[in-house]
Amino acid sequence: MTGSLTIAGLGPGSDRQVTPEVTAAIAAATDIVGYIPYVARIVPRPGLMLHPSDNRVEMDRARAALQMTAQGRHVVIVSSGDPGVFAMAAAVFEALEDAPQWQALDIRVLPGITAMLAAAARAGAPLGHDFCCINLSDNLKPWEVIETRLRHAARADFAMAFYNPRSASRPDTFARTLDVLRAECGPDRLITFARAVSTPEEAIATTTLAEARPDMADMRTVVILGNSATRRVGPWVYTPRRAG
Amino acid sequence: MTGSLTIAGLGPGSDRQVTPEVTAAIAAATDIVGYIPYVARIVPRPGLMLHPSDNRVEMDRARAALQMTAQGRHVVIVSSGDPGVFAMAAAVFEALEDAPQWQALDIRVLPGITAMLAAAARAGAPLGHDFCCINLSDNLKPWEVIETRLRHAARADFAMAFYNPRSASRPDTFARTLDVLRAECGPDRLITFARAVSTPEEAIATTTLAEARPDMADMRTVVILGNSATRRVGPWVYTPRRAG
Repeated sequence: MTGSLTIAGLGPGSDRQVTPEVTAAIAAATDIVGYIPYVARIVPRPGLMLHPSDNRVEMDRARAALQMTAQGRHVVIVSSGDPGVFAMAAAVFEALEDAPQWQALDIRVLPGITAMLAAAARAGAPLGHDFCCINLSDNLKPWEVIETRLRHAARADFAMAFYNPRSASRPDTFARTLDVLRAECGPDRLITFARAVSTPEEAIATTTLAEARPDMADMRTVVILGNSATRRVGPWVYTPRRAG
Repeated sequence: MTGSLTIAGLGPGSDRQVTPEVTAAIAAATDIVGYIPYVARIVPRPGLMLHPSDNRVEMDRARAALQMTAQGRHVVIVSSGDPGVFAMAAAVFEALEDAPQWQALDIRVLPGITAMLAAAARAGAPLGHDFCCINLSDNLKPWEVIETRLRHAARADFAMAFYNPRSASRPDTFARTLDVLRAECGPDRLITFARAVSTPEEAIATTTLAEARPDMADMRTVVILGNSATRRVGPWVYTPRRAG
Protein backbone atom coordinates (compact mmCIF):
# COMPACT_ATOMS: atom_id res chain seq x y z
CA MET A 1 0.00 0.00 0.00
CA THR A 2 1.75 3.15 -1.22
CA GLY A 3 0.62 6.49 0.05
CA SER A 4 1.12 9.93 -1.40
CA LEU A 5 1.46 13.45 -0.06
CA THR A 6 0.42 16.46 -2.13
CA ILE A 7 1.05 19.96 -0.83
CA ALA A 8 -1.45 22.03 -2.77
CA GLY A 9 -2.20 25.72 -3.17
CA LEU A 10 -5.87 26.74 -3.11
CA GLY A 11 -5.23 30.30 -4.31
CA PRO A 12 -6.35 33.32 -2.31
CA GLY A 13 -10.03 32.47 -1.90
CA SER A 14 -12.12 31.99 -5.03
CA ASP A 15 -12.66 28.50 -6.39
CA ARG A 16 -12.30 30.05 -9.84
CA GLN A 17 -8.61 30.46 -9.08
CA VAL A 18 -7.99 26.82 -8.08
CA THR A 19 -6.04 24.97 -10.79
CA PRO A 20 -7.42 21.74 -12.30
CA GLU A 21 -4.46 19.72 -10.98
CA VAL A 22 -5.24 20.85 -7.43
CA THR A 23 -8.94 20.07 -7.87
CA ALA A 24 -7.99 16.59 -9.16
CA ALA A 25 -5.64 15.98 -6.21
CA ILE A 26 -8.40 16.85 -3.75
CA ALA A 27 -10.83 14.57 -5.59
CA ALA A 28 -8.36 11.67 -5.26
CA ALA A 29 -7.46 12.33 -1.62
CA THR A 30 -8.34 10.18 1.38
CA ASP A 31 -7.25 12.88 3.86
CA ILE A 32 -7.15 16.67 3.84
CA VAL A 33 -4.81 18.37 6.31
CA GLY A 34 -4.50 22.11 6.95
CA TYR A 35 -5.26 25.25 8.88
CA ILE A 36 -8.94 25.43 9.87
CA PRO A 37 -10.16 28.08 7.38
CA TYR A 38 -8.40 26.38 4.46
CA VAL A 39 -9.80 22.92 5.24
CA ALA A 40 -13.22 24.62 5.51
CA ARG A 41 -12.97 25.33 1.77
CA ILE A 42 -13.04 21.58 0.97
CA VAL A 43 -16.45 20.04 0.20
CA PRO A 44 -16.92 16.98 2.43
CA ARG A 45 -17.66 13.61 0.80
CA PRO A 46 -17.86 10.00 1.99
CA GLY A 47 -14.41 8.49 2.32
CA LEU A 48 -12.66 11.81 2.79
CA MET A 49 -11.25 12.56 6.24
CA LEU A 50 -10.78 16.23 7.13
CA HIS A 51 -8.03 17.13 9.61
CA PRO A 52 -8.25 20.84 10.39
CA SER A 53 -5.71 22.26 12.82
CA ASP A 54 -4.95 25.61 14.40
CA ASN A 55 -2.48 28.23 13.29
CA ARG A 56 1.17 28.04 14.45
CA VAL A 57 1.27 24.25 14.59
CA GLU A 58 2.82 23.86 11.14
CA MET A 59 5.45 21.33 12.20
CA ASP A 60 2.94 19.09 14.01
CA ARG A 61 0.68 19.26 10.97
CA ALA A 62 3.54 18.37 8.61
CA ARG A 63 4.59 15.38 10.72
CA ALA A 64 1.01 14.14 11.01
CA ALA A 65 0.60 14.34 7.23
CA LEU A 66 3.87 12.45 6.64
CA GLN A 67 2.84 9.81 9.17
CA MET A 68 -0.47 9.23 7.38
CA THR A 69 1.31 9.09 4.03
CA ALA A 70 3.68 6.44 5.37
CA GLN A 71 0.61 4.45 6.40
CA GLY A 72 -0.61 4.42 2.81
CA ARG A 73 -3.09 7.29 2.86
CA HIS A 74 -3.45 9.78 0.01
CA VAL A 75 -2.97 13.01 1.86
CA VAL A 76 -3.41 16.56 0.57
CA ILE A 77 -2.12 19.43 2.68
CA VAL A 78 -4.03 22.53 1.64
CA SER A 79 -2.45 25.97 1.82
CA SER A 80 -3.95 29.28 0.92
CA GLY A 81 -2.30 30.92 -2.08
CA ASP A 82 0.84 29.07 -3.15
CA PRO A 83 2.19 26.41 -0.77
CA GLY A 84 5.77 27.50 -1.44
CA VAL A 85 5.28 31.15 -0.42
CA PHE A 86 5.24 31.46 3.39
CA ALA A 87 3.12 28.34 3.63
CA MET A 88 3.25 24.60 4.26
CA ALA A 89 5.79 23.33 1.69
CA ALA A 90 8.85 24.53 3.62
CA ALA A 91 7.40 23.11 6.85
CA VAL A 92 7.05 19.65 5.28
CA PHE A 93 10.65 19.65 4.04
CA GLU A 94 11.81 20.83 7.46
CA ALA A 95 9.97 17.88 9.01
CA LEU A 96 11.63 15.55 6.48
CA GLU A 97 15.09 16.65 7.63
CA ASP A 98 14.49 15.00 10.99
CA ALA A 99 12.89 11.89 9.49
CA PRO A 100 15.06 10.21 6.83
CA GLN A 101 12.68 7.23 6.81
CA TRP A 102 10.09 9.46 5.13
CA GLN A 103 12.35 10.99 2.45
CA ALA A 104 11.47 8.34 -0.14
CA LEU A 105 7.73 8.93 0.18
CA ASP A 106 5.77 10.03 -2.90
CA ILE A 107 5.61 13.79 -2.32
CA ARG A 108 4.69 16.56 -4.74
CA VAL A 109 4.00 20.27 -4.49
CA LEU A 110 1.28 21.85 -6.64
CA PRO A 111 1.53 25.61 -7.09
CA GLY A 112 -1.32 28.03 -6.57
CA ILE A 113 -2.17 31.67 -7.23
CA THR A 114 -0.32 33.48 -4.47
CA ALA A 115 -1.96 36.47 -2.79
CA MET A 116 0.42 39.14 -4.10
CA LEU A 117 -0.24 38.19 -7.72
CA ALA A 118 -4.01 38.05 -7.24
CA ALA A 119 -3.82 41.44 -5.52
CA ALA A 120 -1.56 42.90 -8.20
CA ALA A 121 -4.01 41.77 -10.90
CA ARG A 122 -6.88 43.56 -9.16
CA ALA A 123 -4.86 46.75 -8.76
CA GLY A 124 -3.36 46.72 -12.28
CA ALA A 125 0.28 45.70 -12.63
CA PRO A 126 2.23 47.09 -9.66
CA LEU A 127 4.64 44.12 -9.79
CA GLY A 128 5.33 44.55 -13.52
CA HIS A 129 9.04 45.17 -12.92
CA ASP A 130 11.60 43.58 -10.56
CA PHE A 131 10.14 43.08 -7.10
CA CYS A 132 10.62 41.37 -3.77
CA CYS A 133 8.35 39.59 -1.39
CA ILE A 134 8.77 39.89 2.39
CA ASN A 135 6.91 38.20 5.23
CA LEU A 136 6.49 40.80 7.97
CA SER A 137 5.68 38.25 10.63
CA ASP A 138 8.37 38.58 13.25
CA ASN A 139 7.43 35.23 14.73
CA LEU A 140 9.93 33.79 12.26
CA LYS A 141 12.67 36.41 12.23
CA PRO A 142 13.84 39.37 14.30
CA TRP A 143 12.85 42.92 13.39
CA GLU A 144 16.49 43.73 12.55
CA VAL A 145 16.42 41.24 9.66
CA ILE A 146 13.19 42.77 8.35
CA GLU A 147 14.61 46.29 8.56
CA THR A 148 17.81 45.32 6.73
CA ARG A 149 15.77 43.75 3.95
CA LEU A 150 13.48 46.77 3.65
CA ARG A 151 16.45 49.12 3.29
CA HIS A 152 18.21 46.98 0.68
CA ALA A 153 14.97 46.50 -1.24
CA ALA A 154 14.35 50.25 -1.29
CA ARG A 155 17.89 51.00 -2.45
CA ALA A 156 17.57 48.36 -5.17
CA ASP A 157 14.35 50.13 -6.23
CA PHE A 158 12.36 46.92 -6.03
CA ALA A 159 8.60 47.02 -5.90
CA MET A 160 7.69 45.12 -2.72
CA ALA A 161 4.93 42.78 -1.61
CA PHE A 162 4.35 42.25 2.10
CA TYR A 163 2.62 39.21 3.58
CA ASN A 164 1.26 39.04 7.13
CA PRO A 165 1.70 42.77 7.71
CA ARG A 166 -0.10 43.03 11.01
CA SER A 167 -1.65 41.05 13.82
CA ALA A 168 -3.00 41.81 17.27
CA SER A 169 0.01 40.14 18.90
CA ARG A 170 2.53 42.42 17.15
CA PRO A 171 0.82 45.66 16.24
CA ASP A 172 4.05 47.65 15.91
CA THR A 173 5.91 45.84 13.13
CA PHE A 174 3.89 47.31 10.32
CA ALA A 175 4.07 50.83 11.78
CA ARG A 176 7.86 50.51 11.93
CA THR A 177 7.86 49.14 8.38
CA LEU A 178 5.98 52.20 7.14
CA ASP A 179 8.46 54.46 8.97
CA VAL A 180 11.44 52.79 7.27
CA LEU A 181 9.74 52.91 3.87
CA ARG A 182 8.86 56.61 4.23
CA ALA A 183 12.46 57.39 5.15
CA GLU A 184 13.86 55.38 2.23
CA CYS A 185 11.27 56.02 -0.49
CA GLY A 186 9.74 59.41 0.34
CA PRO A 187 6.12 60.41 0.93
CA ASP A 188 4.79 60.10 -2.63
CA ARG A 189 5.49 56.42 -3.25
CA LEU A 190 2.29 54.49 -4.07
CA ILE A 191 1.15 51.73 -1.74
CA THR A 192 -1.77 49.35 -2.29
CA PHE A 193 -3.69 47.55 0.45
CA ALA A 194 -5.49 44.48 -0.83
CA ARG A 195 -7.69 42.71 1.69
CA ALA A 196 -9.37 39.32 1.21
CA VAL A 197 -8.65 39.29 -2.52
CA SER A 198 -11.07 37.25 -4.65
CA THR A 199 -13.54 36.82 -1.77
CA PRO A 200 -16.85 38.66 -1.20
CA GLU A 201 -15.06 40.84 1.40
CA GLU A 202 -12.44 42.01 -1.10
CA ALA A 203 -11.28 45.61 -0.65
CA ILE A 204 -8.48 47.23 -2.65
CA ALA A 205 -7.20 50.73 -1.93
CA THR A 206 -4.16 52.62 -3.19
CA THR A 207 -2.70 55.63 -1.45
CA THR A 208 0.72 57.20 -0.84
CA LEU A 209 3.23 56.44 1.90
CA ALA A 210 2.42 59.88 3.36
CA GLU A 211 -1.22 58.86 3.76
CA ALA A 212 -0.71 55.21 4.69
CA ARG A 213 -1.68 54.24 8.24
CA PRO A 214 -0.85 50.99 10.03
CA ASP A 215 -4.52 50.16 10.61
CA MET A 216 -5.11 49.96 6.86
CA ALA A 217 -3.70 46.41 7.06
CA ASP A 218 -4.63 43.29 8.99
CA MET A 219 -3.68 39.63 8.65
CA ARG A 220 -5.94 39.19 5.63
CA THR A 221 -4.20 42.02 3.78
CA VAL A 222 -1.36 41.82 1.32
CA VAL A 223 0.40 45.15 0.87
CA ILE A 224 2.17 46.18 -2.35
CA LEU A 225 4.60 49.09 -2.50
CA GLY A 226 5.50 50.46 -5.91
CA ASN A 227 9.00 51.25 -7.10
CA SER A 228 10.13 54.79 -7.96
CA ALA A 229 8.39 54.65 -11.36
CA THR A 230 5.05 53.16 -10.24
CA ARG A 231 2.17 55.38 -11.28
CA ARG A 232 -1.57 55.60 -11.73
CA VAL A 233 -3.33 55.39 -15.06
CA GLY A 234 -7.10 55.79 -14.92
CA PRO A 235 -8.29 53.58 -12.06
CA TRP A 236 -5.17 51.40 -12.26
CA VAL A 237 -1.72 51.28 -10.70
CA TYR A 238 1.19 49.92 -12.69
CA THR A 239 4.95 49.70 -12.74
CA PRO A 240 6.56 50.23 -16.15
CA ARG A 241 8.56 47.42 -17.67
CA ARG A 242 11.60 49.62 -18.23
CA ALA A 243 13.94 50.95 -15.54
CA GLY A 244 15.41 54.43 -15.58
CA MET B 1 -21.97 47.45 -28.11
CA THR B 2 -19.64 47.20 -25.10
CA GLY B 3 -16.36 45.37 -25.48
CA SER B 4 -14.09 43.91 -22.85
CA LEU B 5 -10.38 43.27 -22.46
CA THR B 6 -9.07 40.47 -20.28
CA ILE B 7 -5.33 40.09 -19.73
CA ALA B 8 -5.02 36.46 -18.72
CA GLY B 9 -2.23 34.22 -17.45
CA LEU B 10 -2.01 30.73 -18.97
CA GLY B 11 0.51 29.44 -16.43
CA PRO B 12 3.87 28.03 -17.49
CA GLY B 13 2.68 25.40 -19.95
CA SER B 14 0.32 22.69 -18.72
CA ASP B 15 -3.42 23.12 -19.17
CA ARG B 16 -3.76 21.56 -15.72
CA GLN B 17 -2.35 24.81 -14.31
CA VAL B 18 -4.82 27.12 -16.08
CA THR B 19 -7.39 28.53 -13.65
CA PRO B 20 -11.14 28.10 -14.30
CA GLU B 21 -11.63 31.88 -14.59
CA VAL B 22 -9.05 32.05 -17.37
CA THR B 23 -10.61 29.08 -19.15
CA ALA B 24 -14.02 30.79 -18.91
CA ALA B 25 -12.64 34.07 -20.27
CA ILE B 26 -11.16 32.27 -23.28
CA ALA B 27 -14.47 30.46 -23.86
CA ALA B 28 -16.31 33.81 -23.93
CA ALA B 29 -13.76 35.62 -26.13
CA THR B 30 -14.23 36.80 -29.70
CA ASP B 31 -10.52 37.54 -30.13
CA ILE B 32 -7.30 36.14 -28.71
CA VAL B 33 -4.20 38.31 -28.86
CA GLY B 34 -0.65 37.33 -27.87
CA TYR B 35 2.84 36.14 -28.64
CA ILE B 36 2.79 33.32 -31.22
CA PRO B 37 3.57 30.34 -28.92
CA TYR B 38 0.99 31.45 -26.35
CA VAL B 39 -1.80 31.91 -28.91
CA ALA B 40 -0.85 28.45 -30.22
CA ARG B 41 -2.08 27.03 -26.88
CA ILE B 42 -5.66 28.17 -27.63
CA VAL B 43 -7.96 25.62 -29.30
CA PRO B 44 -9.53 27.22 -32.39
CA ARG B 45 -13.32 27.34 -32.68
CA PRO B 46 -15.82 29.03 -34.99
CA GLY B 47 -16.30 32.67 -34.10
CA LEU B 48 -12.93 33.01 -32.37
CA MET B 49 -10.31 35.14 -34.12
CA LEU B 50 -6.69 34.39 -33.27
CA HIS B 51 -4.19 37.27 -33.53
CA PRO B 52 -0.69 35.88 -32.92
CA SER B 53 2.20 38.35 -33.06
CA ASP B 54 5.96 38.23 -32.71
CA ASN B 55 8.08 38.89 -29.66
CA ARG B 56 9.17 42.48 -28.83
CA VAL B 57 6.02 44.10 -30.24
CA GLU B 58 4.26 44.32 -26.89
CA MET B 59 3.14 47.93 -27.33
CA ASP B 60 1.71 47.33 -30.80
CA ARG B 61 -0.08 44.28 -29.47
CA ALA B 62 -1.50 46.20 -26.50
CA ARG B 63 -2.80 49.03 -28.71
CA ALA B 64 -4.35 46.59 -31.19
CA ALA B 65 -6.15 44.82 -28.34
CA LEU B 66 -7.43 48.12 -26.91
CA GLN B 67 -8.60 49.20 -30.36
CA MET B 68 -10.59 45.98 -30.84
CA THR B 69 -12.06 46.34 -27.35
CA ALA B 70 -13.18 49.89 -28.16
CA GLN B 71 -14.92 48.44 -31.23
CA GLY B 72 -16.97 46.13 -29.00
CA ARG B 73 -14.98 42.91 -29.26
CA HIS B 74 -14.37 40.61 -26.30
CA VAL B 75 -10.61 40.38 -26.36
CA VAL B 76 -8.33 38.16 -24.30
CA ILE B 77 -4.61 38.88 -24.28
CA VAL B 78 -2.87 35.65 -23.31
CA SER B 79 0.42 35.70 -21.42
CA SER B 80 2.50 32.79 -20.28
CA GLY B 81 2.69 32.46 -16.51
CA ASP B 82 1.16 35.46 -14.77
CA PRO B 83 0.35 38.52 -16.91
CA GLY B 84 1.59 40.88 -14.19
CA VAL B 85 5.10 39.39 -13.95
CA PHE B 86 7.26 40.60 -16.86
CA ALA B 87 4.35 40.13 -19.23
CA MET B 88 1.53 41.93 -20.99
CA ALA B 89 -0.36 43.66 -18.15
CA ALA B 90 2.20 46.47 -17.71
CA ALA B 91 2.34 46.96 -21.50
CA VAL B 92 -1.42 47.47 -21.66
CA PHE B 93 -1.40 50.07 -18.88
CA GLU B 94 1.53 51.80 -20.58
CA ALA B 95 -0.53 51.98 -23.79
CA LEU B 96 -3.46 53.38 -21.78
CA GLU B 97 -1.32 56.29 -20.58
CA ASP B 98 -1.16 57.63 -24.11
CA ALA B 99 -4.83 56.99 -24.84
CA PRO B 100 -7.18 58.52 -22.27
CA GLN B 101 -10.15 57.70 -24.50
CA TRP B 102 -9.58 54.01 -23.65
CA GLN B 103 -9.21 54.37 -19.87
CA ALA B 104 -12.90 53.75 -19.22
CA LEU B 105 -12.93 50.45 -21.13
CA ASP B 106 -13.90 47.26 -19.30
CA ILE B 107 -10.46 45.85 -18.47
CA ARG B 108 -9.49 43.11 -16.04
CA VAL B 109 -6.36 41.14 -15.25
CA LEU B 110 -6.61 37.45 -14.37
CA PRO B 111 -3.60 36.04 -12.54
CA GLY B 112 -1.83 32.83 -13.52
CA ILE B 113 0.77 30.44 -12.12
CA THR B 114 4.02 32.27 -12.71
CA ALA B 115 7.10 30.31 -13.79
CA MET B 116 9.13 30.81 -10.61
CA LEU B 117 6.39 29.32 -8.43
CA ALA B 118 5.83 26.35 -10.75
CA ALA B 119 9.60 25.80 -10.79
CA ALA B 120 9.90 26.17 -7.02
CA ALA B 121 7.15 23.58 -6.53
CA ARG B 122 8.99 21.06 -8.69
CA ALA B 123 12.27 21.66 -6.84
CA GLY B 124 10.76 21.67 -3.35
CA ALA B 125 10.38 25.03 -1.61
CA PRO B 126 13.41 27.20 -2.49
CA LEU B 127 11.28 30.37 -2.22
CA GLY B 128 9.91 29.44 1.21
CA HIS B 129 11.40 32.56 2.82
CA ASP B 130 11.70 36.20 1.68
CA PHE B 131 12.75 36.41 -1.97
CA CYS B 132 13.06 38.67 -4.97
CA CYS B 133 12.31 38.31 -8.62
CA ILE B 134 14.55 39.88 -11.27
CA ASN B 135 14.20 40.00 -15.05
CA LEU B 136 17.71 39.59 -16.49
CA SER B 137 16.73 40.86 -19.92
CA ASP B 138 18.82 43.95 -20.51
CA ASN B 139 16.54 45.01 -23.35
CA LEU B 140 14.56 46.81 -20.66
CA LYS B 141 17.27 48.08 -18.33
CA PRO B 142 21.02 48.65 -18.31
CA TRP B 143 23.37 46.08 -16.80
CA GLU B 144 24.32 48.53 -14.03
CA VAL B 145 20.75 48.41 -12.68
CA ILE B 146 20.79 44.62 -12.71
CA GLU B 147 24.15 44.49 -10.91
CA THR B 148 23.00 46.93 -8.21
CA ARG B 149 19.89 44.83 -7.60
CA LEU B 150 21.87 41.60 -7.43
CA ARG B 151 24.22 43.05 -4.81
CA HIS B 152 21.43 44.46 -2.66
CA ALA B 153 19.47 41.22 -2.94
CA ALA B 154 22.50 39.20 -1.87
CA ARG B 155 23.19 41.48 1.10
CA ALA B 156 19.53 41.28 2.12
CA ASP B 157 19.92 37.47 1.99
CA PHE B 158 16.94 37.13 -0.32
CA ALA B 159 16.42 33.95 -2.29
CA MET B 160 16.23 35.08 -5.92
CA ALA B 161 14.30 34.05 -9.01
CA PHE B 162 15.61 35.09 -12.43
CA TYR B 163 13.45 35.39 -15.53
CA ASN B 164 14.83 35.57 -19.08
CA PRO B 165 18.35 34.67 -17.97
CA ARG B 166 19.90 34.25 -21.38
CA SER B 167 19.34 34.74 -25.08
CA ALA B 168 21.45 34.54 -28.21
CA SER B 169 21.42 38.31 -28.57
CA ARG B 170 22.94 38.93 -25.14
CA PRO B 171 24.91 35.85 -24.11
CA ASP B 172 27.04 37.66 -21.52
CA THR B 173 24.45 38.96 -19.05
CA PHE B 174 23.92 35.66 -17.30
CA ALA B 175 27.67 34.95 -17.11
CA ARG B 176 28.16 38.33 -15.45
CA THR B 177 25.23 37.61 -13.15
CA LEU B 178 26.84 34.37 -12.00
CA ASP B 179 30.13 36.21 -11.37
CA VAL B 180 28.41 38.78 -9.15
CA LEU B 181 26.49 36.10 -7.28
CA ARG B 182 29.63 34.02 -6.67
CA ALA B 183 31.42 37.09 -5.32
CA GLU B 184 28.51 38.01 -3.04
CA CYS B 185 27.22 34.59 -1.97
CA GLY B 186 30.22 32.25 -2.17
CA PRO B 187 30.68 29.00 -4.09
CA ASP B 188 28.41 26.72 -2.07
CA ARG B 189 25.11 28.57 -2.56
CA LEU B 190 22.49 26.31 -4.20
CA ILE B 191 21.11 27.28 -7.60
CA THR B 192 18.28 25.56 -9.48
CA PHE B 193 17.79 25.62 -13.24
CA ALA B 194 14.21 24.86 -14.24
CA ARG B 195 13.57 24.59 -17.96
CA ALA B 196 10.16 24.34 -19.63
CA VAL B 197 8.40 23.63 -16.33
CA SER B 198 5.16 21.63 -16.60
CA THR B 199 5.78 20.73 -20.27
CA PRO B 200 7.02 17.40 -21.72
CA GLU B 201 10.49 18.99 -22.07
CA GLU B 202 10.71 19.87 -18.39
CA ALA B 203 14.20 19.58 -16.88
CA ILE B 204 15.07 20.59 -13.31
CA ALA B 205 18.64 20.55 -11.98
CA THR B 206 20.15 21.91 -8.80
CA THR B 207 23.85 22.58 -8.36
CA THR B 208 26.08 25.08 -6.56
CA LEU B 209 27.29 28.48 -7.74
CA ALA B 210 30.78 26.96 -8.06
CA GLU B 211 29.47 24.42 -10.56
CA ALA B 212 26.93 26.65 -12.35
CA ARG B 213 27.71 27.48 -15.98
CA PRO B 214 26.00 30.10 -18.14
CA ASP B 215 24.94 27.53 -20.73
CA MET B 216 22.78 25.76 -18.15
CA ALA B 217 20.13 28.44 -18.87
CA ASP B 218 18.29 29.58 -21.97
CA MET B 219 15.20 31.73 -22.52
CA ARG B 220 12.89 28.87 -21.46
CA THR B 221 14.68 28.56 -18.12
CA VAL B 222 13.80 30.17 -14.82
CA VAL B 223 16.71 30.17 -12.38
CA ILE B 224 16.29 30.13 -8.59
CA LEU B 225 19.13 30.97 -6.22
CA GLY B 226 18.74 29.96 -2.59
CA ASN B 227 19.46 32.19 0.39
CA SER B 228 22.23 31.44 2.92
CA ALA B 229 20.08 28.80 4.65
CA THR B 230 18.76 26.97 1.58
CA ARG B 231 19.59 23.28 1.76
CA ARG B 232 18.88 19.88 0.32
CA VAL B 233 16.71 17.26 1.97
CA GLY B 234 16.45 13.97 0.10
CA PRO B 235 15.76 14.87 -3.55
CA TRP B 236 14.40 18.29 -2.59
CA VAL B 237 15.72 21.82 -2.13
CA TYR B 238 14.11 24.10 0.42
CA THR B 239 14.58 27.36 2.25
CA PRO B 240 13.62 27.30 5.93
CA ARG B 241 10.84 29.56 7.12
CA ARG B 242 12.97 31.05 9.89
CA ALA B 243 15.87 33.46 9.42
CA GLY B 244 19.07 33.35 11.46
